Amino acid sequence: MTLSTHAPGDFATETIRPIWWNADAGPGGVLEMIDQTRLPGEFITIQCRTIQSVWDAIKRLSVRGAPAIGVAAAYGVVTALDESAPADGDWAECVTKSADFLATSRPTAVNLFWALDRMRRVAAGLGSIPFADARAALLAEAHAVRDEDAAMCRAIGEHGQHLIEEGAGVLTHCNAGALATAEYGTALALMYSAHARKRRFSVFVDETRPLLQGARLTAWELHRAGIAAQLICDNMAASIMKAGRIQLVVTGADRIAANGDAANKIGTYGVAVLAAAHNIPFYIAAPSSTFDMSLPNGDGIPIENREPDEVRGFGASKTAPADMPCLNPAFDVTPARLIKGIVTEKGIISPVTTDEIAARIG
Amino acid sequence: MTLSTHAPGDFATETIRPIWWNADAGPGGVLEMIDQTRLPGEFITIQCRTIQSVWDAIKRLSVRGAPAIGVAAAYGVVTALDESAPADGDWAECVTKSADFLATSRPTAVNLFWALDRMRRVAAGLGSIPFADARAALLAEAHAVRDEDAAMCRAIGEHGQHLIEEGAGVLTHCNAGALATAEYGTALALMYSAHARKRRFSVFVDETRPLLQGARLTAWELHRAGIAAQLICDNMAASIMKAGRIQLVVTGADRIAANGDAANKIGTYGVAVLAAAHNIPFYIAAPSSTFDMSLPNGDGIPIENREPDEVRGFGASKTAPADMPCLNPAFDVTPARLIKGIVTEKGIISPVTTDEIAARIG
Repeated sequence: MTLSTHAPGDFATETIRPIWWNADAGPGGVLEMIDQTRLPGEFITIQCRTIQSVWDAIKRLSVRGAPAIGVAAAYGVVTALDESAPADGDWAECVTKSADFLATSRPTAVNLFWALDRMRRVAAGLGSIPFADARAALLAEAHAVRDEDAAMCRAIGEHGQHLIEEGAGVLTHCNAGALATAEYGTALALMYSAHARKRRFSVFVDETRPLLQGARLTAWELHRAGIAAQLICDNMAASIMKAGRIQLVVTGADRIAANGDAANKIGTYGVAVLAAAHNIPFYIAAPSSTFDMSLPNGDGIPIENREPDEVRGFGASKTAPADMPCLNPAFDVTPARLIKGIVTEKGIISPVTTDEIAARIG
Repeated sequence: MTLSTHAPGDFATETIRPIWWNADAGPGGVLEMIDQTRLPGEFITIQCRTIQSVWDAIKRLSVRGAPAIGVAAAYGVVTALDESAPADGDWAECVTKSADFLATSRPTAVNLFWALDRMRRVAAGLGSIPFADARAALLAEAHAVRDEDAAMCRAIGEHGQHLIEEGAGVLTHCNAGALATAEYGTALALMYSAHARKRRFSVFVDETRPLLQGARLTAWELHRAGIAAQLICDNMAASIMKAGRIQLVVTGADRIAANGDAANKIGTYGVAVLAAAHNIPFYIAAPSSTFDMSLPNGDGIPIENREPDEVRGFGASKTAPADMPCLNPAFDVTPARLIKGIVTEKGIISPVTTDEIAARIG
């Protein structure tokens, strides 16, 4: 149910889907997702039959990653319609109310608002049609949100897969994988695409302290897909590079400025510096929607500082003195000069300059 | 009991002692130590009244760090004498047997054998004197092992303290602190010495995955000494360097080749590369006994690969799939070209070249 399948030779690898509409459940289908808070220890599927359960799933990070959250919200509007089964004249109000409510689940998630706006716009364009027809149109729009994200990720994979050469070692940081998107992921899409072409390569997965998205999520999804991968502590990357075992570094990005400076999970900048010191190309893979053309460079990207307890331990395990002062920046900014190329759904931007980006993304 | 005190103006800071002879306990005193396996959660002192308890303390890492283990073993011989209270003619055999037994507690710890050999040599030179006199001479030798290590660490601190300038930010990795030595530590000796001179500076402590010696031990001892320190995840160092907040990096070393290539805890090499990229001087602090002049360079230093479970989680906390393949090299080698200087008890070796090292260490 959670694995997508494709025609052989097409994108012939199984990649995980974090969220999907199960058309076989109930009369009209039901929203289902992987509970990512239980990974990697347990693989548990959640069924969401109420809008509250969708809101909770987003809030408690059962679904995470900006594109995947957008998909959850779009389907969540249909879940709200199915839950309240409004009369023919009342469905429009139900869409508005449920979209307003779902928008409060993660107030900083841009994709959440964007997906809900799409649902609102479709509803507004339907006029006064019967509920059943409106529901069908809105479910089709939610499917489109999902399918368009999957197609975008897949295009990123296809454009970038040749960067992974036969026998190469590839390092990645954090989780820019299928679990964060509708399917395929961004940085990991290159790997899924190369794997589907039967290329052999080996991935080194940074565990990505403090929240360990690499250990919990990237390691899990690559291992499940049958791609050769080894988990390492973040501080081991340098000596593995020195040993000549890494030929490519590829990560995702949270936000990219007009000149190519890229904000991503803390530690990405350090990996980029180490890659440069070892003459290893460093790439970012991200959809064009990640570019914020209003920022001339990375200096204007605000860096969230999170709670010190994340650094003082691992979940319930406390490893440092309880009152130890900590720094906990959640992101860092990698300057464009360290980035060999940015793989987007429109192709690879390289060299990474303001002019090249304007020409491709504009 | 565990804090050393000095005449004001001398080395007027309190530094932790991991192990000491408590002369006030019992008729002849008793060996006591901090149980480092309980830090930082609990500060517990162990009394060792049997040779088995000393052996256990070394084996289970209640005392760790090569110099501190040597001190424990030397005192352990006296503990064995007190436990068995041999007749005047039998003490020499007791020394031999106890030294042989203690040598099995950590088969790879060079300082352990070295300290036990010192005790054996002293015993052999005493001839057939009464037990009470022999015990006094052996206790004096154990004190000497301790005091000489403390003096060596203190000299390292005094030689290197000027590298920490007023207002500086200093990064360190792992625990090259008082807890690993008789007192003061090596890299941390510079900090204790600068702190005693009332200099203000701020330390960034790498948590040092996978075993977290930075979070558990370095953070704890600096915090306790009243030195301003902040704990960070290893992958945060690069962005803090980029922000201009680090002016000096100093770490310990496990083994240094004749050309200055230095093996130390995994992650040290990456920190050295990052320091070079940000024009920050990278120093090593280590006693001259750390040099292995039989190795022309670092290529011959074997790197221990440890169990994957250390990378898959921390302690009881599991964070990755249980069958996830991992790499877990315990050490890496930093090439001499990245090391600005090596602070020893004989002074600072800089530049780090085969000739300079030969002239100082020979």
